[in-house]
Amino acid sequence: MNPIIDQMNQHFSVRQFKKERIADETLKTIINAGRSASTWMNFQSYSIIVVRNQEKKQKIYDLLGQSSILSADVFLVFVGDFYRAKQITDEKGVAFKPEGVERLLVSSVDAALVAQNTLLAAESMDLGGVIIGMLRTKSEQLSKLLDLPDYTYPLIGISLGVPDEHHEIKPRLPYENVVFDETYQIQPEAFVETFDEVQSRYADGRQATLWSERVANYFSGDATASTLQNLKEKKLM
Amino acid sequence: MNPIIDQMNQHFSVRQFKKERIADETLKTIINAGRSASTWMNFQSYSIIVVRNQEKKQKIYDLLGQSSILSADVFLVFVGDFYRAKQITDEKGVAFKPEGVERLLVSSVDAALVAQNTLLAAESMDLGGVIIGMLRTKSEQLSKLLDLPDYTYPLIGISLGVPDEHHEIKPRLPYENVVFDETYQIQPEAFVETFDEVQSRYADGRQATLWSERVANYFSGDATASTLQNLKEKKLM
Repeated sequence: MNPIIDQMNQHFSVRQFKKERIADETLKTIINAGRSASTWMNFQSYSIIVVRNQEKKQKIYDLLGQSSILSADVFLVFVGDFYRAKQITDEKGVAFKPEGVERLLVSSVDAALVAQNTLLAAESMDLGGVIIGMLRTKSEQLSKLLDLPDYTYPLIGISLGVPDEHHEIKPRLPYENVVFDETYQIQPEAFVETFDEVQSRYADGRQATLWSERVANYFSGDATASTLQNLKEKKLM
Repeated sequence: MNPIIDQMNQHFSVRQFKKERIADETLKTIINAGRSASTWMNFQSYSIIVVRNQEKKQKIYDLLGQSSILSADVFLVFVGDFYRAKQITDEKGVAFKPEGVERLLVSSVDAALVAQNTLLAAESMDLGGVIIGMLRTKSEQLSKLLDLPDYTYPLIGISLGVPDEHHEIKPRLPYENVVFDETYQIQPEAFVETFDEVQSRYADGRQATLWSERVANYFSGDATASTLQNLKEKKLM
């Protein structure tokens, strides 16, 4: 098609990395490309913490148990950030109202757009990575470790490095189950069994459970309480 | 650098479009490239509504007052979507717990990652667009218009088409104000004045207010209540 769409279509998550260092200049180029993403009213309601210190990566690994963090050259934490907005409203002497789900979506979308661009930019430089939303299960501890001030919260992380593994591309749901013309179309339930089969073929015996079983398990369990607790501590809820 | 990073660095939002139709096949290629983005546990907790009907675009424009929607060939609505998860938990006969901010971040990040990829894929095909978060000010009306069922909500839209305008690239905050090594670093307040000047130079008289004044105005005002109201109606809060 073209190099950009080809790169997107080749995406797979990398969790195991070679012991090679990403040059500082390369990392900056990647992150700056990421930061060219659209942002709500040009407010740029996010920050990025670049973790390279191995002891700190070890501490984050101890919290989350995701081995990619230890193996990665860099662990990037994408933070929803209204602290700069607080500085601005203070300077102007006006009220500051950062709380609630609407504001949360502004900063989370800003941060996620930059994160996606950053990961794709890295992939275009023959690097790889994996997005880690699970870090929100330890929002409070991570906030302390990264000195996150009020009005900021960790949204997602990316383990980044030179890939030491290669996967087939993970199949997505069929287009017609997800993309609808003009109005939402509820899907006949047969999509579940069909996609379970697709996923099982892809997993080729490496996963003991069906995709739908993992979905059901996740949504029947309680979501982590850490996200809300931390948002309250940071005065965002 | 490389074509992908170059494309990112050339990003600017397009709000005015030529009266040219994007071929169906091209649109599908773009959206499928977008859908190759990472997704939480491969759940793909999002859907996309493709609005091409001019009367429907007119109705959305009437709600939001953003002229890009009328001018665009396609208006894409990215929807956070746990309806498929509800179908799966029902089928398995287990509990379904879709409520709360942690779940909201799962679906919103999933949808935003796909949206960023989709816009960049479009730009790589000489199309352009603008991301519209402001659609959440009319979450309930938009949900009705698009027949969104329970457990789904509109997150952002993209007006997409063949560009009929060209801008300079909008400056971002300096790297050192946003990207931090190892821990968060609170910025000296001088960053505000410095960036106001950068933005004013970019705006070149086209904006009557300073960047910081727009930030202060936004954060001192009340956020739209429509987002939360709609999330409650859709049983997500």
